Amino acid sequence: MSHATPTANPVPAHAFAGVFAQLAPHMAALDEFLRGQLEAFEPEIRDMADYCIDTSGKRIRPALVFLSGWRGPGVVTPELVKVAAVVEMVHLATLVHDDIMDEADMRRGRPTASRHYGPTAAVLLGDALLAHAVHLAAQFPTTEICAAVSESTRRVCAGEIVQTLRRGSTNVSRADYDRIIDLKTAELFRVSCFLGSRLAGTAPGFVEAAASFGRHLGIAYQIYDDLADFFGEERRIGKTLGTDLASGKLTLPLLTLMEKLPANDRTELTQEILGQRPPQLAHRLAQMASHGVFEAVSANVEAEIGRAVAALQPWSEEAPTEKLLSLCDVLRGQLSALRGPQ
Amino acid sequence: MSHATPTANPVPAHAFAGVFAQLAPHMAALDEFLRGQLEAFEPEIRDMADYCIDTSGKRIRPALVFLSGWRGPGVVTPELVKVAAVVEMVHLATLVHDDIMDEADMRRGRPTASRHYGPTAAVLLGDALLAHAVHLAAQFPTTEICAAVSESTRRVCAGEIVQTLRRGSTNVSRADYDRIIDLKTAELFRVSCFLGSRLAGTAPGFVEAAASFGRHLGIAYQIYDDLADFFGEERRIGKTLGTDLASGKLTLPLLTLMEKLPANDRTELTQEILGQRPPQLAHRLAQMASHGVFEAVSANVEAEIGRAVAALQPWSEEAPTEKLLSLCDVLRGQLSALRGPQ
Repeated sequence: MSHATPTANPVPAHAFAGVFAQLAPHMAALDEFLRGQLEAFEPEIRDMADYCIDTSGKRIRPALVFLSGWRGPGVVTPELVKVAAVVEMVHLATLVHDDIMDEADMRRGRPTASRHYGPTAAVLLGDALLAHAVHLAAQFPTTEICAAVSESTRRVCAGEIVQTLRRGSTNVSRADYDRIIDLKTAELFRVSCFLGSRLAGTAPGFVEAAASFGRHLGIAYQIYDDLADFFGEERRIGKTLGTDLASGKLTLPLLTLMEKLPANDRTELTQEILGQRPPQLAHRLAQMASHGVFEAVSANVEAEIGRAVAALQPWSEEAPTEKLLSLCDVLRGQLSALRGPQ
Repeated sequence: MSHATPTANPVPAHAFAGVFAQLAPHMAALDEFLRGQLEAFEPEIRDMADYCIDTSGKRIRPALVFLSGWRGPGVVTPELVKVAAVVEMVHLATLVHDDIMDEADMRRGRPTASRHYGPTAAVLLGDALLAHAVHLAAQFPTTEICAAVSESTRRVCAGEIVQTLRRGSTNVSRADYDRIIDLKTAELFRVSCFLGSRLAGTAPGFVEAAASFGRHLGIAYQIYDDLADFFGEERRIGKTLGTDLASGKLTLPLLTLMEKLPANDRTELTQEILGQRPPQLAHRLAQMASHGVFEAVSANVEAEIGRAVAALQPWSEEAPTEKLLSLCDVLRGQLSALRGPQ
């Protein structure tokens, strides 16, 4: 994932402030529920689990659960809270494992679990979080939640494995990129919307539409995230940027630039990605600007948002629809903000 | 776990030959089932999953499932095969993660997944195996299997975390050791027997007894395993031995020796365990011999086998009982073999 450090986390929490204000009772219930879960962990690892289940994250996936199952202001059902906890815990487990692999020292302004407890303990801690997420899922009356969550988890892992194996390789096509983000990011967005709407008892057609909405929003979000790695505000304040270039990850901005460069320059960029030449970040950013990479990639984000909106189009009468669509507005706003200072 | 390398795997597969001969149709069905599962993995990670789901392991946990649910020779039910696959896949996932942490290069005579695909991919691959195990568990009519498997998985991880955090520390009590092996090893033995007998529809009292049998057999097995690390036949053929001493793991043979040494010598041994002095393996083995460590630890194995046998004592009429008890004979035989060449 590209969330290796807090600086690479380009959607600030305040961007969701409007949407989240109405979810305050839901998130409070989620926090309380998650804190209560610590008791279920073996005493020896309770503090470690507590460290990982912090409350400072954006909680986009729980928000998707709550908004997909929206039944009116202040209506907080225990089923939605539990399934939001399941999805968030799976996400936190993947972050714990990501930080080991990325050798990341900091996340959300404090040491990662890997840094704090060592990578060995962090591998196992991620496993324990994953296992506990499933254990919560098994508390529902049917196996449907377990089945959905476990399949999603496997797909998220598959996506990250493919990304890992391709890292430092220039043999990545646009189709590969699409597949990776569909698995590693969009899958958990999709299942959050699926489970939220399903547990709220909405029409089967709407559940399918909400899942499709979640998937496309997830794709849009990841492309945006990859774009912000090159064009985020960190550039202006002098922090690390282009971490994807430096780490050899071929994301859409780089893929798009590659397509637009003449053959000899493409070879040089390839060598930078392979670590055979020092990355010329300023030069590449200038090339991205002159070749309209920002606009091209932005258009991809917009197109995915369009697909997300279209999925819900037949369901304008459903209570969750308006709420979910507001997330598209948030993402569009962030994209504009990124464009602004160019 | 102490199964870091093939040489540290002290119960040779042939020891179970007698028990396994009658499980041949079960194991064949399990192999076929596991191979069929590869299709469920995303195409990009199918080969990697195949590499991990090899057929060369001892398959003790599936054997426990099949024997606990024994209904007569050649009776192989799809439910038992599936749940055996679930338990084995959880076990394989933990091995994949163990090998990363132990930086083990070889397992069962070939490179570990971590060595073969790199530790980053191996972390994710273990996650994917774990997720798929749960996905299979979710295919049962009720959530009971998911609930049992996920709770066991969390407990196994907790046990390994505690062991990891204590590694290289001399502040480990006998109670700590008991707790670690109860979680990291006995738990999966216990749940294998629980699930096998439960799915076979045996009396609730027998299910409880079988679970208790599994737990005590697991404890006995792990103590035996730790004993074999110091007294195994590898010593005679010049391979690495005393890996637990070298890696700073305080297992029962070392704990027992500690208790028996005078204070000044205990300080020296402590420094060896802490890596502050080179480990004097030959000297420590001689001390273990003169202080009767082998006999003391053997007595612990025997005591646990006794508890396992006692759990089944009221259930001699049940078909699985005789089959399960034969595993105790196997372990006793192995213990004798270890004692033999002293």
